[in-house]
Amino acid sequence: MRHNFGAGPCILPQEVFKQASQAVLDFKDGLSILEISHRTPEFEGVVEETTRLIKELMNVPEGYSVLLLQGGASLQFAMVPMNLLPEGQTASYLETGVWANKAIKEVAFFGKANIVASSKDANFTFIPKDYTIPEDSAYFHFTSNNTIYGTELFNLPKTSIPVVCDMSSDIMSRVIDVSQFDLIYAGAQKNIGPAGLTVVIVKDEILGKSGRKIPSMLDYKVQIDGGSMYNTPPVFSIYTAMLNLRWLKAKGGVAEIEKENTAKARALYAEIDRNPLFKGTCAVEDRSKMNVCFVMENPEHEKPFLKYAEENGIEGIKGHRSVGGFRASIYNALPITSVHALIELMQIFAEKQQ
Amino acid sequence: MRHNFGAGPCILPQEVFKQASQAVLDFKDGLSILEISHRTPEFEGVVEETTRLIKELMNVPEGYSVLLLQGGASLQFAMVPMNLLPEGQTASYLETGVWANKAIKEVAFFGKANIVASSKDANFTFIPKDYTIPEDSAYFHFTSNNTIYGTELFNLPKTSIPVVCDMSSDIMSRVIDVSQFDLIYAGAQKNIGPAGLTVVIVKDEILGKSGRKIPSMLDYKVQIDGGSMYNTPPVFSIYTAMLNLRWLKAKGGVAEIEKENTAKARALYAEIDRNPLFKGTCAVEDRSKMNVCFVMENPEHEKPFLKYAEENGIEGIKGHRSVGGFRASIYNALPITSVHALIELMQIFAEKQQ
Repeated sequence: MRHNFGAGPCILPQEVFKQASQAVLDFKDGLSILEISHRTPEFEGVVEETTRLIKELMNVPEGYSVLLLQGGASLQFAMVPMNLLPEGQTASYLETGVWANKAIKEVAFFGKANIVASSKDANFTFIPKDYTIPEDSAYFHFTSNNTIYGTELFNLPKTSIPVVCDMSSDIMSRVIDVSQFDLIYAGAQKNIGPAGLTVVIVKDEILGKSGRKIPSMLDYKVQIDGGSMYNTPPVFSIYTAMLNLRWLKAKGGVAEIEKENTAKARALYAEIDRNPLFKGTCAVEDRSKMNVCFVMENPEHEKPFLKYAEENGIEGIKGHRSVGGFRASIYNALPITSVHALIELMQIFAEKQQ
Repeated sequence: MRHNFGAGPCILPQEVFKQASQAVLDFKDGLSILEISHRTPEFEGVVEETTRLIKELMNVPEGYSVLLLQGGASLQFAMVPMNLLPEGQTASYLETGVWANKAIKEVAFFGKANIVASSKDANFTFIPKDYTIPEDSAYFHFTSNNTIYGTELFNLPKTSIPVVCDMSSDIMSRVIDVSQFDLIYAGAQKNIGPAGLTVVIVKDEILGKSGRKIPSMLDYKVQIDGGSMYNTPPVFSIYTAMLNLRWLKAKGGVAEIEKENTAKARALYAEIDRNPLFKGTCAVEDRSKMNVCFVMENPEHEKPFLKYAEENGIEGIKGHRSVGGFRASIYNALPITSVHALIELMQIFAEKQQ
């Protein structure tokens, strides 16, 4: 039995793998999903259903468009200021990790970035809280979950300016109120589907105000007008995302998966706090429910524990080099039985040390 | 028996479908290709092999980089001038169809486009030939194969300035001399692999001369430095492209597939020219070996013939709305037996009309 705790591209439901595998052989009438035109009614139906499922699962209000794009969150780092930041104006960013920092760097091509707060000096082990967002910024940008550091922002700061969020690693893991956001983007490869797809949810009325001419592929308005089919979309990634969203819906939607995610995170953090060999790496109130980061009290135990875990089917728990130790990513599709398996190994390993 | 003549995303070899389908279930040690990190040695090996196969199959000389990107040719329409065209300068373009025209339109965001020649007035039924490329242009751009109109440019114009080519629909269908090009780009979804991947082959020395600051994801140099892994790449599309390139190599490479492609095209055009019911739509010397466009002498025959063809397993031959009639796309993976099946139907249909 394998338990895939990888940080992403990550585990998806086994039934999604089976269905996607089958569609590669035979999507319709013997033709593979890889050889059908994106302009067939069948694939147009896939795009329509995927878009509709995102709207339904996230309860996206009227006045927002859902886009299925390419290029990952990294391309959004540039597209956001390109579309929303008028020349010479300022956008405010919260710096909570390397990915937030990468987003900040792309602003310089279009205007100025104002960092409202940063936890960089503490190696991003907490989410800054008491800061002011200047009302004359074009927008406020933050990263809701910091995959590398295992922190997550649970309380939206209050502001009257447009709010933009990189939700790549916790989208659809918990119920959020989309109406409090103006633009949400996410690389698909955590809770949405395979790599190669980027989801953007944008409030239509914030667009068209930058005064900047935008190349077609990078213009949200062009993509909205094209119904995510301005050019050939990433067919297989969209199809598999649809299968995964169907799975999430059948499970009861985001509210139900949130309960499971909370139970998984609670169990694992409880063991980290209880077990004398382990300790968490970040502020308790900011602990991510998607990426659980921890180290060992005695660093010399880390290599043997990693080896022991890997020998017992636990995959992908090595921490990112900038944090060290371990990172257990417990995305939507990871079953709680996998978390229990990890906890059991932590307990057995601790007993062995006595 | 189905024969997939679709214009793209198009047919790939059946064995590629089988292998890709299997990898969705089990790529390595029970893990799906969809759930593995792009930073694993196994996937880094896939990127390395895919890049190496492109270099090998196309005989890419030293001094060129091969990139595996996202966004399709449409994003390249913008990235090319963004990276190669200094502010206010001019790039020269050959207008041979709608896609060439879309490329031309994106130049306006970065400089000026000079159209050296166009066959627009003739609905792009031929490739313009006698034109001059101004030597003070930053580069010369053309589309090597025009999917919609069924024309292909076989003789490179002579010029001393950098040559940029959108080779989306005939890359790896015939032997070309890469050293005569400075930048080649291609959406993968014809002869390379599934949709969601874009291949760029660029001569390193032409980069870094635009004087323009370029957002990271759109900067060829950043992508070269990142080894096509500046961010999470389209894992499955790259993996399947690798399988397809292995297939091409096993067949004997581009020179061998070119023989098959020539035989397929020759047989089909011969029937179009021989059969009194059908006629070709474009200049004989510019006839594409990838997309064979034809109409019927009596337009009233077209609906019945399309119906008859579809009833007999012929898929995707309806012509693009801007040309009408039929388009049989005969990409690398389409077996010659499919071409023979189509020809046989054309002959039987003609006999029935007598």
